[in-house]
Amino acid sequence: MSDFFAGIPAVTYEGPEARSDFAFRHYNPDEMVMGKRMEDQLRFAVAWWHSFAWEGGDPFGGPTFQRPWFGDTLDHARAKADAAFEMFRILNVPFYCFHDADIRPEGASFAETTANLEAMVDYLGQKQEASGKRLLWGTANLFSHRRYMAGAATNPDPDVFAYAAATIKTCMDATHKLGGANYVLWGGREGYETLLNTDLGREREQAGRMLQMVVDYKHKIGFEGTILLEPKPQEPTKHQYDYDVATVFSFLSEFGLQDEVKMNIEQGHAILAGHSFEHELALAREFGILGSIDMNRNDYQSGWDTDQFPNNIPEVALAYYEILRAGGFDTGGTNFDSKLRRQSLDPADLIAAHVAAMDVCAAGLKAAARMLEDGELEQRREDRYAGWRAPSAEAMLNGGKLEDCFAHVMETGLDPQPVSGGQERLEALVARYL
Amino acid sequence: MSDFFAGIPAVTYEGPEARSDFAFRHYNPDEMVMGKRMEDQLRFAVAWWHSFAWEGGDPFGGPTFQRPWFGDTLDHARAKADAAFEMFRILNVPFYCFHDADIRPEGASFAETTANLEAMVDYLGQKQEASGKRLLWGTANLFSHRRYMAGAATNPDPDVFAYAAATIKTCMDATHKLGGANYVLWGGREGYETLLNTDLGREREQAGRMLQMVVDYKHKIGFEGTILLEPKPQEPTKHQYDYDVATVFSFLSEFGLQDEVKMNIEQGHAILAGHSFEHELALAREFGILGSIDMNRNDYQSGWDTDQFPNNIPEVALAYYEILRAGGFDTGGTNFDSKLRRQSLDPADLIAAHVAAMDVCAAGLKAAARMLEDGELEQRREDRYAGWRAPSAEAMLNGGKLEDCFAHVMETGLDPQPVSGGQERLEALVARYL
Amino acid sequence: MSDFFAGIPAVTYEGPEARSDFAFRHYNPDEMVMGKRMEDQLRFAVAWWHSFAWEGGDPFGGPTFQRPWFGDTLDHARAKADAAFEMFRILNVPFYCFHDADIRPEGASFAETTANLEAMVDYLGQKQEASGKRLLWGTANLFSHRRYMAGAATNPDPDVFAYAAATIKTCMDATHKLGGANYVLWGGREGYETLLNTDLGREREQAGRMLQMVVDYKHKIGFEGTILLEPKPQEPTKHQYDYDVATVFSFLSEFGLQDEVKMNIEQGHAILAGHSFEHELALAREFGILGSIDMNRNDYQSGWDTDQFPNNIPEVALAYYEILRAGGFDTGGTNFDSKLRRQSLDPADLIAAHVAAMDVCAAGLKAAARMLEDGELEQRREDRYAGWRAPSAEAMLNGGKLEDCFAHVMETGLDPQPVSGGQERLEALVARYL
Amino acid sequence: MSDFFAGIPAVTYEGPEARSDFAFRHYNPDEMVMGKRMEDQLRFAVAWWHSFAWEGGDPFGGPTFQRPWFGDTLDHARAKADAAFEMFRILNVPFYCFHDADIRPEGASFAETTANLEAMVDYLGQKQEASGKRLLWGTANLFSHRRYMAGAATNPDPDVFAYAAATIKTCMDATHKLGGANYVLWGGREGYETLLNTDLGREREQAGRMLQMVVDYKHKIGFEGTILLEPKPQEPTKHQYDYDVATVFSFLSEFGLQDEVKMNIEQGHAILAGHSFEHELALAREFGILGSIDMNRNDYQSGWDTDQFPNNIPEVALAYYEILRAGGFDTGGTNFDSKLRRQSLDPADLIAAHVAAMDVCAAGLKAAARMLEDGELEQRREDRYAGWRAPSAEAMLNGGKLEDCFAHVMETGLDPQPVSGGQERLEALVARYL
Ligand SMILES: [Co+2]
Ligand SMILES: [Co+2]
Ligand SMILES: [Co+2]
Ligand SMILES: [Co+2]
Ligand SMILES: [Co+2]
Ligand SMILES: [Co+2]
Ligand SMILES: [Co+2]
Ligand SMILES: [Co+2]
Repeated sequence: MSDFFAGIPAVTYEGPEARSDFAFRHYNPDEMVMGKRMEDQLRFAVAWWHSFAWEGGDPFGGPTFQRPWFGDTLDHARAKADAAFEMFRILNVPFYCFHDADIRPEGASFAETTANLEAMVDYLGQKQEASGKRLLWGTANLFSHRRYMAGAATNPDPDVFAYAAATIKTCMDATHKLGGANYVLWGGREGYETLLNTDLGREREQAGRMLQMVVDYKHKIGFEGTILLEPKPQEPTKHQYDYDVATVFSFLSEFGLQDEVKMNIEQGHAILAGHSFEHELALAREFGILGSIDMNRNDYQSGWDTDQFPNNIPEVALAYYEILRAGGFDTGGTNFDSKLRRQSLDPADLIAAHVAAMDVCAAGLKAAARMLEDGELEQRREDRYAGWRAPSAEAMLNGGKLEDCFAHVMETGLDPQPVSGGQERLEALVARYL
Repeated sequence: MSDFFAGIPAVTYEGPEARSDFAFRHYNPDEMVMGKRMEDQLRFAVAWWHSFAWEGGDPFGGPTFQRPWFGDTLDHARAKADAAFEMFRILNVPFYCFHDADIRPEGASFAETTANLEAMVDYLGQKQEASGKRLLWGTANLFSHRRYMAGAATNPDPDVFAYAAATIKTCMDATHKLGGANYVLWGGREGYETLLNTDLGREREQAGRMLQMVVDYKHKIGFEGTILLEPKPQEPTKHQYDYDVATVFSFLSEFGLQDEVKMNIEQGHAILAGHSFEHELALAREFGILGSIDMNRNDYQSGWDTDQFPNNIPEVALAYYEILRAGGFDTGGTNFDSKLRRQSLDPADLIAAHVAAMDVCAAGLKAAARMLEDGELEQRREDRYAGWRAPSAEAMLNGGKLEDCFAHVMETGLDPQPVSGGQERLEALVARYL
Repeated sequence: MSDFFAGIPAVTYEGPEARSDFAFRHYNPDEMVMGKRMEDQLRFAVAWWHSFAWEGGDPFGGPTFQRPWFGDTLDHARAKADAAFEMFRILNVPFYCFHDADIRPEGASFAETTANLEAMVDYLGQKQEASGKRLLWGTANLFSHRRYMAGAATNPDPDVFAYAAATIKTCMDATHKLGGANYVLWGGREGYETLLNTDLGREREQAGRMLQMVVDYKHKIGFEGTILLEPKPQEPTKHQYDYDVATVFSFLSEFGLQDEVKMNIEQGHAILAGHSFEHELALAREFGILGSIDMNRNDYQSGWDTDQFPNNIPEVALAYYEILRAGGFDTGGTNFDSKLRRQSLDPADLIAAHVAAMDVCAAGLKAAARMLEDGELEQRREDRYAGWRAPSAEAMLNGGKLEDCFAHVMETGLDPQPVSGGQERLEALVARYL
Repeated sequence: MSDFFAGIPAVTYEGPEARSDFAFRHYNPDEMVMGKRMEDQLRFAVAWWHSFAWEGGDPFGGPTFQRPWFGDTLDHARAKADAAFEMFRILNVPFYCFHDADIRPEGASFAETTANLEAMVDYLGQKQEASGKRLLWGTANLFSHRRYMAGAATNPDPDVFAYAAATIKTCMDATHKLGGANYVLWGGREGYETLLNTDLGREREQAGRMLQMVVDYKHKIGFEGTILLEPKPQEPTKHQYDYDVATVFSFLSEFGLQDEVKMNIEQGHAILAGHSFEHELALAREFGILGSIDMNRNDYQSGWDTDQFPNNIPEVALAYYEILRAGGFDTGGTNFDSKLRRQSLDPADLIAAHVAAMDVCAAGLKAAARMLEDGELEQRREDRYAGWRAPSAEAMLNGGKLEDCFAHVMETGLDPQPVSGGQERLEALVARYL
């Protein structure tokens, strides 16, 4: 047990008029939303790295946080885990996520590092059992250590590829052992700083091979979770291979893995790639690869990944709308890949930030559900394409030819007239559900 | 014959010390570069729309140019063509490009519009024959008219799809008749202003069908040129389907068209999508779909497509380097999709801008050729990946398993050490060839 | 009377549950907010240019709107005015704004153009009297005509300066005659496309002189309204002199006009300059130059001025919060410098877009008022700086010296400890008022 | 003496054909450029922080560099200084720059920290004397330590203000003792993360007071160098007070310090603020506050401060052109505020990067000088404004009135015709000097 959060009560639903920073005003786990408990729709997870491992540094400043568990020993790691599970309890959040590097101290050798990981997996297993908390996903940190500075799977040095592969194995084992619902890969160093020293074609092949190895190993060990890739266009490198959903889909298609791998989509990464969050979600849904989300917000005016807690209900509602249209989460969930601002030093900041974010998501989800259940928006969308239900239109779509269209236009003197797209009225309609 | 450019001499190569705005200092058509005449390497084309059809307006201002050929009759269209071919002669440029809407007046009906197009194709055919100038590519303008405001292939109204298909047929016929080396599709309205009224999945299917129809028709009429798609992420719409090279490749793969269609890549569109021009070129080369280029520059600090004439030799050199690495152009070429600033009112501005741009490209090409012939840069790139030539590394890439890598790392205590990426030294190396 | 909006009822407050596109759910003109009627707090105005003059074109497409009043005669201009006042009536909006070019046809000469303006001012005067509608501000369009392509006040040709000055006089006269509450200057062409042909210093002086002339003329004719400058960083030019609030303040200071001129701040222009709307408002308030606002939203992911109708209550609330902190509007108001998307063709779109925007503003204003009246946020802000109320701190601020601070730190061994900035808790606090 | 750079020869001018990474091809210190030795025009300085203190971390990764001088003791600090002066010798660079935190270990108290600083100042003084190297500027690091997380001068805690003031005193003393040519202030934490907890007006006043104290102290101790402010719009904070040159000028004007303080302008910061480097330089020149430059480049497509070594001669030439138009540097110079990419691990990378950057600057300077000496560009600029030399135009600028302009336009029927801005021809002209 950690006393880091001493004095902060377990957070419960108190309704919209609650004044405390430590009360839910919208998140009510047992309330039913589109046929599921809200908890089961949202599947909230806390991210170990931002909340427990990050020290508050930025490119121009050192650590600002001072946590009792900062240190390099297994004792520190266990103290960190104690605080983490204490926070999960206070927040009443069902899931968490981690990288290997978040939960165990780095050892002097790969073997020692692996032993540390295994020790901590045992410890987390016990804590899971005692608390009922579950692992949404595990992943390997293949970007912080200097050995990965030029990539992991895409490194010019095959030894780094091998080291990364070995590390992924240990992380998949850990995730499997802890009953993780998914396993995630984020290629923060899989890209380039300069094209001048980069063999794009070769590096893509290396990445394809690594992903195939991950899928093979999943089947070998009988891991039932979903393999997820998380796109991001740039930062830390100048340009990353998993740029966005469309790029990753082309990659999966090229290597024949589109039925094996889904997407973990982060709001901030969508923004950095020039897309809205809902665009990336909708596109993944159309491709059949929508898996899970990293919920945060990026400051639209800062050109880097600010990973802030979400605070805009209208935006969040549009994201959950796309998820609900996809039938909701299967193995995926809502991971808060969000970190405190580095000036938010207090334990209470950590709790209050999550509470507010959970409320924003709950309010957004409920608005999205109302919108979908009401059906007006989908009706208007469908009406807009009604002309395509005519047999002649269907025929054109299925076997049309330019020359037939030409003959038809010439014969009928066709002169199609534009119809209002009604964007402002649709935006006004959406506003009514918020 | 047009007297629009009266007083401006035919531009010839005069060497680096020339002072006139109407002399080439770098572009020397017959000079050999990597085994081809410079003219045949660069394959310059003038874009009809920017140079002869655009009137100088912007979102806050009306026309600034006053050209004698502005007007809606076939006489105007012929006067425009006369001026265009006069400019091609002055510039000694071998190719040109057009949209249907650039070269013919819009008629009162589709039939009349088509007749106008045919009349102008005959006229251009005669001018080609007289001048030896050739068509690099033709294309259909499916974005300016209000009927296309919600898309052409991806319109919610199947009549617009049919109208667009009929129009494409006429433009492919025109291109075929004029011996065009390529046919281009740019989907400026194939995207959305708001997801709220958009069925992404359906619209992708519509676009896929249209592209298949284009490919079918190409084979039917025996057109030998290449079908090219031109990616652009946004503008005019908020979000376009042909976002960038990777997105288009995923689209081609989905519809099985990756061997039928190549890319026409524009510098400005690469920038708007968050990529460098050379990135898009290299990626297309790796995918085997590098076709042709639209050479311009975008102001990095303006968030729209400024389509300026190129003026930075170091940047242009990196682009041609990727093209030369791909073996140079096949049917493609260098189209100046660049327009005068709207304050550049004079005929001399139009000539001088192209002269300077051609010189920038020639200087860039020569630098790229020196760089490739010298071989130092490619040698350093190859050396960086040398480790992957070891049999054990190749084996890992071809059939590796996570568990084997794990065993290997554990057994050997592998601890790979990072090696300098040498970026600054590579940049300095590149600078030497400029 | 115009029948353009036939069938659309006058819009009234029907409460939050209203379903119609033509009902206010939040805007209730007579409801009191912080001691004023909501109508008097918000002071809504419709912008003539976007709603009645803009034809729906964009850089890649021509007009999409087809309005009966499009044309070049005084009859067209009166029909346009009739439709406009009909819309003001339907919306129950108290104010409107115009450029000269919006309301009158351009004549063949300056004299004819001026006569046209005067005729329309008479006509608008009659309509004002009949309807009770008022003019929030008038302004001169010194950017659309080709004569202004290189600037109006900052043009290299003094004749253009003179022409612009003469035009401003006519627009100030018109505004004065119609009882306008403000007169606005927006320098869309006062900037440069390239530094290479620009004399920055001289052009600043020209701009300073023009502004002085405007202020002099205001006093000469006894115009009681406020002179407002509207900053914008770029677009249409590459770089404009009135970049943002801080830049304009330095300009006003340089020419001694900071007590004569205030700011008209637009959300979209704040965004383009890299600031939030609330930042620009707060800064103007601190400088004592907060005048009026142009309420719209810019798409954060489009790099140009999209001028969309506002639809995000949390964002709008933060803007009105800064305005309420400044004591609310004096002569200023909320002008919708927002335009329909070019696919929104219908009269109903025009009404519904304004209705929704007015509701968003009303909801935002009410949230802002609750936040300010509650006082919690301001209390927390004040507490954060409490240390500065100590006499020693005040002394340091008023006459401190580096050497005294040094002595103090050395003597006391001062080692200040950071305190949480509490950002997430403040964001959560704000969310409660929404 | 450090053997860190063992094996790397002193770099000398070898002419354009040199092949080595350790030869100057353009920088020839004694060559005369516009009446001064090239060394005296460029006044190159190495930045201690990037080259000797930065460890290669980024937001997603830890240190990559392993330098023998990394550590917290005075011995480490002296070893670092030895390596630095060895590099200055190899590069033949006349100047260097530092923050206090770069050159001395942090102590356990302010007194100890100050003593460490003084010890290192003595050491550097000896090394200066032995080598002839000089200090271009010193500055205080008021942004890395967590005590400054909420600002130094603008901190809500007056103790932090006092601590910062005391620190600045020690750094000004150090700079004075070492004969520094300038003293710089960069307010990396003087801004905000959220407006919600920020009192903009108060913080501006605090910043104004601190700057006044700096100026007062300069005069008190008889420091003859220039006080320089370095603008930057954002990063590390969301928004900084010293946004850009125009903003800082408004700040200096407000506090009456425009004759006491000049600008240190960084290319990367200009870019982040939405301006070109040459814009900021030209504006500062017009305001009379152009002081010194931080020469680097920012990746236009990365939204953060990449601080890369310059490598684009056309861009650098435009910057030096503005500096030469201002008469060249007085106390200022060219500081390389540029850092190696974190993958560039080797001592040779550090040398080669500077060599290439110095060459780029030298080539840019020479091009700029040719351009200015030739006079064609300035002649064209002057011609463009020739109309303003007419007495009537001058009169209008000095005492014109709107009503006089109106009368003049009406009487003469003035109808000014636009003249080509000739942008492309000017760009082509510039290209000839490169
Ligand atoms: Co994430
Ligand atoms: Co992120
Ligand atoms: Co193009
Ligand atoms: Co373009
Ligand atoms: Co506006
Ligand atoms: Co705007
Ligand atoms: Co700097
Ligand atoms: Co910087």
